[in-house]
Amino acid sequence: MKHFRVKPGERMRLDDIDPHYKAARDKEAAADEISHYAERLRELQYLLYAEHRRSLLICLQALDAGGKDGTIRHVLGYMNPQSCRVQAFKAPTPEEAEHDFLWRIYKVVPRVGEVVIFNRSHYEDVLIARVQELVPKSVWSERYDVINAFEKHLSDSGTHILKFFLHISPEEQLRRFKKRLDDPTRQWKISEADYAERPYWDDYTKAFEDALSRCSTDHAPWFVVPANHKWSRNLIVSRIVVKYLESLDMQFPKPTVDLTDIAAKYHAAVTSSKEKDND
Amino acid sequence: MKHFRVKPGERMRLDDIDPHYKAARDKEAAADEISHYAERLRELQYLLYAEHRRSLLICLQALDAGGKDGTIRHVLGYMNPQSCRVQAFKAPTPEEAEHDFLWRIYKVVPRVGEVVIFNRSHYEDVLIARVQELVPKSVWSERYDVINAFEKHLSDSGTHILKFFLHISPEEQLRRFKKRLDDPTRQWKISEADYAERPYWDDYTKAFEDALSRCSTDHAPWFVVPANHKWSRNLIVSRIVVKYLESLDMQFPKPTVDLTDIAAKYHAAVTSSKEKDND
Repeated sequence: MKHFRVKPGERMRLDDIDPHYKAARDKEAAADEISHYAERLRELQYLLYAEHRRSLLICLQALDAGGKDGTIRHVLGYMNPQSCRVQAFKAPTPEEAEHDFLWRIYKVVPRVGEVVIFNRSHYEDVLIARVQELVPKSVWSERYDVINAFEKHLSDSGTHILKFFLHISPEEQLRRFKKRLDDPTRQWKISEADYAERPYWDDYTKAFEDALSRCSTDHAPWFVVPANHKWSRNLIVSRIVVKYLESLDMQFPKPTVDLTDIAAKYHAAVTSSKEKDND
Repeated sequence: MKHFRVKPGERMRLDDIDPHYKAARDKEAAADEISHYAERLRELQYLLYAEHRRSLLICLQALDAGGKDGTIRHVLGYMNPQSCRVQAFKAPTPEEAEHDFLWRIYKVVPRVGEVVIFNRSHYEDVLIARVQELVPKSVWSERYDVINAFEKHLSDSGTHILKFFLHISPEEQLRRFKKRLDDPTRQWKISEADYAERPYWDDYTKAFEDALSRCSTDHAPWFVVPANHKWSRNLIVSRIVVKYLESLDMQFPKPTVDLTDIAAKYHAAVTSSKEKDND
């Protein structure tokens, strides 16, 4: 877990992290562990829901084809939608754009007992907003502190936060674009925009390095997940989330009712039901 | 599928339907089929999402301990929360109560491509509202037509609707209450209210019969699912949803871009990437 965590206060470089890294020998070796964690995730999510004391926010960020949707589909999305919500952020709507950048985020943070997965997040406002100069530097450069204060407040209010950057190489991105071109069941996902951001790869790398370095905190850590191998990415993300939830030592809550009283009600109901049978 | 469907226009009686009915020989015999349908549900959900033409609304209704949460946890909740949302309705908040009964429902109906599961629904307004006399008869008796018109409009707008009543016997409800009493991991779920509604069992039966008879339509059918055996209930619900989605004959959409153009962009990106390597 620590292996992938960006140390608070430390300047990090993405070049130091190999996107080809494998967290197990091969896909087959990882499969059992991944399904174990997926099952465990459901149990822990249920406990979080039952406990009703705190919540979990998971942020996923990556460049195009980095595997955000896949991580949800193959791992995180095995949580029960009864108390797990996925919130995707696209370009702000006109109404959203007329508010500060945290307005649309705030509306959808988890309620107590809930898990919310952000597919993209408020970090877009220091990523694409910076690279594509959607706002001047004087604006985006202030946002790191604003984000840290926002996350600190959420955390103080009982929301646990885990943030994942899915790290792929430019070659792997191209391989995935090719796959979309060749597969009729994936062609609908192709967008002109896929190629529009590629020339800015180095700018995005810099923007990510700043966000990861400046906004990885004890209460809201960033994890850099080597993501060229999808199965390895799934293994790492699921393991980190499971180990984290296990560390919370969650407990089923005490009953809110007097059990003796309820037992009496139960027996009265049984008796009345038997009397009906005898009628 | 037809076996459990309430025929539009027909007066139905719950007494005619045995809550003990088993849709397979036993639990073991059903297990494979249930996991097949759970997997299939995910695939079909993805296709609905990709197709982006229509949506699916599933309503679950039952008396306390009838198995709404369990049906979600063990079957429907295997859909990917990326495009599946569970919406639970409790007693209206003060704000909700200051609006007509469909106001809070309307706000959370599925968007295109999405599956929404209602855990309880607008039918509460002709069930508990009627049995507990929360509104006068002149009000609730008008609501059946209002609901039919609402669902017709949703359906005309591209939302497919399936409604399930999970049918248990009063004895099975008691057995489940007992289980909650005896199991420390279930005691937190016990509420005083569990026993408060039992004396009204026959009134609820009548209210359900009216709702099922008056609001089962071709475009928004009600299904009565024998639900004393949880595995059989899971098998029936998952089979109906899967068969229904299969009948829609959904297709991956055509690409929205010119594939030749994208192929050219791909090759330019590959070339530029190789040139970088040679630098």
